[in-house]
Amino acid sequence: MEIPAQDAAHMARAVELAGRGHGTTSPNPVVGCVVLDAAGEVAGEGFHAYAGGPHAEVVALAQAGERARGGTAYVTLEPCDHTGRTGPCSQALLDAGVARVVIAVSDPNPKAAGGAARLRARGVAVTSGVLAGEAGRVNEEWLTYARLGRSHVTWKFAATLDGRSAAEDGTSQWITSPEARADVHRLRAASDAIVAGIGTVLADDPRLTARPTPPAEDGSGVGDEVGVRRATGVRVPLRVVVDPDGRTPPSARVLDDQAPTLVAIADDVETDLKADLLRLPRHAAGLDLPALLGELAAREVVSVFLEGGPTLAGSFIGQGLVDRVVAYVAPALLGSGRAALGAAGVRTIGELHRLTFDDISPIGPDVRLIARPTTQPGREK
Amino acid sequence: MEIPAQDAAHMARAVELAGRGHGTTSPNPVVGCVVLDAAGEVAGEGFHAYAGGPHAEVVALAQAGERARGGTAYVTLEPCDHTGRTGPCSQALLDAGVARVVIAVSDPNPKAAGGAARLRARGVAVTSGVLAGEAGRVNEEWLTYARLGRSHVTWKFAATLDGRSAAEDGTSQWITSPEARADVHRLRAASDAIVAGIGTVLADDPRLTARPTPPAEDGSGVGDEVGVRRATGVRVPLRVVVDPDGRTPPSARVLDDQAPTLVAIADDVETDLKADLLRLPRHAAGLDLPALLGELAAREVVSVFLEGGPTLAGSFIGQGLVDRVVAYVAPALLGSGRAALGAAGVRTIGELHRLTFDDISPIGPDVRLIARPTTQPGREK
Ligand SMILES: NC(=O)c1ccc[n+]([C@@H]2O[C@H](COP(=O)([O-])OP(=O)(O)OC[C@H]3O[C@@H](n4cnc5c(N)ncnc54)[C@H](OP(=O)(O)O)[C@@H]3O)[C@@H](O)[C@H]2O)c1
Ligand SMILES: NC(=O)c1ccc[n+]([C@@H]2O[C@H](COP(=O)([O-])OP(=O)(O)OC[C@H]3O[C@@H](n4cnc5c(N)ncnc54)[C@H](OP(=O)(O)O)[C@@H]3O)[C@@H](O)[C@H]2O)c1
Repeated sequence: MEIPAQDAAHMARAVELAGRGHGTTSPNPVVGCVVLDAAGEVAGEGFHAYAGGPHAEVVALAQAGERARGGTAYVTLEPCDHTGRTGPCSQALLDAGVARVVIAVSDPNPKAAGGAARLRARGVAVTSGVLAGEAGRVNEEWLTYARLGRSHVTWKFAATLDGRSAAEDGTSQWITSPEARADVHRLRAASDAIVAGIGTVLADDPRLTARPTPPAEDGSGVGDEVGVRRATGVRVPLRVVVDPDGRTPPSARVLDDQAPTLVAIADDVETDLKADLLRLPRHAAGLDLPALLGELAAREVVSVFLEGGPTLAGSFIGQGLVDRVVAYVAPALLGSGRAALGAAGVRTIGELHRLTFDDISPIGPDVRLIARPTTQPGREK
Repeated sequence: MEIPAQDAAHMARAVELAGRGHGTTSPNPVVGCVVLDAAGEVAGEGFHAYAGGPHAEVVALAQAGERARGGTAYVTLEPCDHTGRTGPCSQALLDAGVARVVIAVSDPNPKAAGGAARLRARGVAVTSGVLAGEAGRVNEEWLTYARLGRSHVTWKFAATLDGRSAAEDGTSQWITSPEARADVHRLRAASDAIVAGIGTVLADDPRLTARPTPPAEDGSGVGDEVGVRRATGVRVPLRVVVDPDGRTPPSARVLDDQAPTLVAIADDVETDLKADLLRLPRHAAGLDLPALLGELAAREVVSVFLEGGPTLAGSFIGQGLVDRVVAYVAPALLGSGRAALGAAGVRTIGELHRLTFDDISPIGPDVRLIARPTTQPGREK
């Protein structure tokens, strides 16, 4: 498709606006909108900032006012056609008298879809697929969730240049820098759930909360991110322990009151653990992970931040359930000790899990590599 | 030291010029020179291009001619004071009537040092230490060789994001891309010797030659780099197999006639292997590696490109004998299979080998990370 330069430029701006909602709109998508007046001048801009707040189109149209009449609206996601907490955006665009609507990505959600059709039926010129790649990327978590009916999974790991995350005797603090750890907290905060295996919980007793500043030496000093998020109504990430046999100690930090926690255990296990339990079928190496991600999606968990350890991560990777890898690589070598990733179902080189690097950034003295699977079976890309 | 902006700018240019000789001056250092006339205008530039060719100062002074009189010379390395294949550069600067000489790095080589002293004694103003860090970096291999009396070692490895270089069944072709492999050939070509362990020779039967284009599928098609280098008088990298018990097969490709080869074997082993042998004492895990690097230095091998495998690399790293690490990391995950680095003497996290990233570059779909040890015992940095 040949895209007019003007359309691409305005949609790029809409994608940029959409990105501002990243991490706070869940379980809604991120959406950006730019409205031009009939003369082609920008009259309004908007993005969806948080669930329950006004949609991007409504914000941009309000800003444009009467100037929207006969104008063009650029939207990163097909305008919704259903009446939820706000009225349908398709109707808002019609009411404002917009003559043309340019859409990046169609809405895969049957509840919301139909906006383009309604606009066309009412004589509005509709163009679809403009900058669909970029708009799809900014909305990646939500689109995975909407298309596959499971949470989007980001696997994070920290390792040395030779791929190890602990020395021979199990010691591992600190391989990566405070800057890298702060970045992890930022990514945690933008996720709906933080998932760890029982191995990690037993070995490290992690809090699995998003803390914008590293905790003090004595382990105290949970940051104020939780409080800030609560005050603004943005959800605190749910903590999930993947623990087939209910081995989570009652005193585990992950069960403290800093955030809600779900302990995923096998449906055949008796336990008197005082925690919210998620019962799941057993599967070869532990619990049924697709079932886990489906259950989390049913609880409106759009994005999962998987923090390991290597065994659980190997299972996720082996089953093609990781959508994004974030690797913090420290300039250091171990030569022995625990590998960052455990068995992932590869016996021979042809079965290698191929990725593509999306972003390569220095973070303090370390480097952060973000990658995505090159092919993902059953996945629209 | 407060460095005048002019001095820094001219020295930066001299460092850039020095870099052009990289890979072809061995066993000489790389050197760059900028000559200003008395009015401060650039009158001449030069660099040392190959051993036996004119020194940087001589090239720059020839270009400047009479304009050098009363002017300033910027040199990345202290001008030599001995008569080798060319006369001493200190004398050339005096003969040209230069009034001031700015030096980045002092010459650690007692044979060549004394240039600054001679210039000062004859009334020339001499400033030392300007941009010493940058000039030291561009000349890193040679300075290591001159200061420590051993070859400079670059360890190269290729691995997945999780630090593995072969799958469980030993298969490994191709983890990294043709672009990364071409880059390896470029680095090989700029080295004086390419070193591999007998494990790698037995497993892969590598050629260990620098070939600018990858070999054809059938294994034929050695590139023309060797021919080009021979024609220009630049040395073809020496191949070195670290083979305590003389297990190199007589038919090994590394013994072909494409480049000279040295087989390092233990001094107590009897062998009828038809190859140039380097006898070395045994050491815990194999041969005495400092002795190997000392012997190579004695043969004017300034820079060694260590291509593994993991066992030999682990020994080099463990003994603090690696000066630079070049890692080609492919966007891929294995989860099992051979680790890129073998045991390197680290039992607990405090013994971790710390590095600093010098350069992070995408190479085709892969990323190349260049790092150096943060502290190197007994090393001036
Ligand atoms: N470098 C990093 O970024 C990083 C991050 C996190 C953790 N770690 C380290 O990793 C270590 C712990 O790792 P780990 O590998 O021992 O434990 P883990 O991966 O955290 O947990 C593994 C456990 O998860 C349970 N599980 C449930 N369903 C599973 C499934 N489908 N597949 C696989 N496992 C499933 C199993 O529990 P059962 O045994 O009860 O069946 C399994 O033993 C810690 O020492 C921690 O420091 C490192
Ligand atoms: N990914 C990459 O970049 C890369 C690069 C090169 C090789 N490789 C792979 O690595 C594999 C071979 O690796 P490897 O670890 O088996 O063999 P290796 O490291 O190539 O050679 C190890 C051998 O070197 C000898 N050696 C002599 N002195 C030594 C010392 N001081 N310390 C350690 N070893 C010393 C020993 O021979 P003796 O046993 O005779 O005593 C030892 O067994 C191959 O499969 C190859 O494909 C990968």
